[in-house]
Amino acid sequence: MSERRGHDLGLHRVIEPQGALPQAAERLDAESPAFENEIVIDVQTLNIDSASFHQIMGELGRDEAKVGERVREIVAARGKMQNPVTGSGGMLLGTVKAIGKHYQGPVELKVGQRVATLVSLTLTPLKIDAIEKVHLDADQIDIRGTAYLWPSSPVVAMPEDLPERVALSALDVCGAPAQTARLVEGKERVLILGAGKSGMLCAATARATLGEAGKVYAVDLYDENLKVLQDAGIVDDFRTANAKVPTEVLEAVEAMTGGEPVDVVINTCNVSGTEMSAILPVKDRGVVYFFNMATDFSRAALGSEGVGKDVDLLIGNGYAHGHAELTLKMVREFAVVRRQLEGLAGA
Amino acid sequence: MSERRGHDLGLHRVIEPQGALPQAAERLDAESPAFENEIVIDVQTLNIDSASFHQIMGELGRDEAKVGERVREIVAARGKMQNPVTGSGGMLLGTVKAIGKHYQGPVELKVGQRVATLVSLTLTPLKIDAIEKVHLDADQIDIRGTAYLWPSSPVVAMPEDLPERVALSALDVCGAPAQTARLVEGKERVLILGAGKSGMLCAATARATLGEAGKVYAVDLYDENLKVLQDAGIVDDFRTANAKVPTEVLEAVEAMTGGEPVDVVINTCNVSGTEMSAILPVKDRGVVYFFNMATDFSRAALGSEGVGKDVDLLIGNGYAHGHAELTLKMVREFAVVRRQLEGLAGA
Repeated sequence: MSERRGHDLGLHRVIEPQGALPQAAERLDAESPAFENEIVIDVQTLNIDSASFHQIMGELGRDEAKVGERVREIVAARGKMQNPVTGSGGMLLGTVKAIGKHYQGPVELKVGQRVATLVSLTLTPLKIDAIEKVHLDADQIDIRGTAYLWPSSPVVAMPEDLPERVALSALDVCGAPAQTARLVEGKERVLILGAGKSGMLCAATARATLGEAGKVYAVDLYDENLKVLQDAGIVDDFRTANAKVPTEVLEAVEAMTGGEPVDVVINTCNVSGTEMSAILPVKDRGVVYFFNMATDFSRAALGSEGVGKDVDLLIGNGYAHGHAELTLKMVREFAVVRRQLEGLAGA
Repeated sequence: MSERRGHDLGLHRVIEPQGALPQAAERLDAESPAFENEIVIDVQTLNIDSASFHQIMGELGRDEAKVGERVREIVAARGKMQNPVTGSGGMLLGTVKAIGKHYQGPVELKVGQRVATLVSLTLTPLKIDAIEKVHLDADQIDIRGTAYLWPSSPVVAMPEDLPERVALSALDVCGAPAQTARLVEGKERVLILGAGKSGMLCAATARATLGEAGKVYAVDLYDENLKVLQDAGIVDDFRTANAKVPTEVLEAVEAMTGGEPVDVVINTCNVSGTEMSAILPVKDRGVVYFFNMATDFSRAALGSEGVGKDVDLLIGNGYAHGHAELTLKMVREFAVVRRQLEGLAGA
């Protein structure tokens, strides 16, 4: 009996190699019925990671049937959707079918509720019964299938008051606003580096957290989003600069602050080589938060040492308590952010 | 006149590309005399980064003359010792020759003092007058030459009461103990993952900071250093486990703590694939400090998200105020650590 409870980290679903965590596993067991610490999801849509989807299309061409068949094969072989070439997964949308009696997850859920997983498909046990429709331009596949989530896997109930594409687009980066809220609390000057989707959400969060008590500055290569953010009172000032050129960013920031360093830098640039642009403008004992998957660990560590900067360098953890709820709140409260996200999502 | 003051980040020494920081620069100016914000160092020894030194030996063989000539060529071409293949540098030992009137560096220095740079050779303007002796087994080259340091470049006066090799060996990792002291302050349970040079220094620092008020645990693949640390009262308990197998480490830690998570994990393993071993044992809202150059940014960020862990993930910045002094203090105060370092340094 107690064996049917399952392990909090999902080890009960790992087939091989033994001792691996589900994400690192070669193969998961998606055949066993639900364990008592799991929820069961009727899966309707797989949002395949863009890199993975394009790798498959690159190999098979823009052929809906072939792409669908490849995804079916991968999931049948591995018990999860983890592209063996790119190593990446994606997330899924579905409906809660059952809730195990020992499931204690991060949010309250009800049977019948529409949910999205905020944990990667690379560690989600998944069984596909049928491929319904492949959306080649949206990196999405509608399926009939079943997935299982244990308590440590973040999940969110889809909001009913927001277009699904906009909500998903915001939820995709929901770790960043939550960390921003914590890091800027009580601070004077905040720099948002990069004003794309996550940059805009972080700027809004910084404004909501600081009120009028602190200054929110932004830098991006282009000024479209920056102007919109300033007009809406979300950022106090902005400059355009190339985040790959640290001295250019430093000058831009000093021009805005009157030469003062900032307390916190949130790096949301989605390009490589921007570590020093985030490190130079921050004050002694300040904080740099890297919500940028192109960040190079050594470049940040050695670069900061190279300029003798005693600052905290934080890796952008994708999970924080209440991250999904806070992010959706920002989308609701800042109409301009919602509008920009709708534009980006093509909604 | 004011031009001779130089820039705080050394931009006055960058020849190309324009706007680059010294570390990213292709070529530095090591010919101009000292600027007013610089110190001049009579260089005696270059400690070449091990990866760089071995790349050169791999290409040219174990030939002292050829290896020396290659280093001379690189420095002549680039104005700094940055191996174009590995991208890495090293550090240098020398004597303070002059101190510019506008130099305000991280520590008090006197002319004639023996110093080591704690900033990489990849951003240190260097001119070589002669190669004196190449030490193929020590990755060292004795030279006659001149280097310049501006205020943001960390430097340390060599201690007179410690063997030079032991001091250098400890200084090589001095960012880690300084951060450890800050992070464990007031905490109950600390895990040191990896008990090599930096792990031992961090364990000693944790003990010095916590006194008997907190528990210091350690995990390493081998038990030699672990036993020594426990006998000396530096760690309260230890286990051997493979840091590449997260579940093995988690079990080892839970066996020591009675199933409780720890407040802080210091990851000093110098191998890849140890991110999750550091993340799993830490408590909710705890801190993981990665002083491990083999850390993969995405694996840490996505891995933490994958197990729904709301923890702070810190990149091991190589610089912190007073880092060299604190580290040497640990070597002096913990005889057992000094003895182990002497063994490692072959002193």
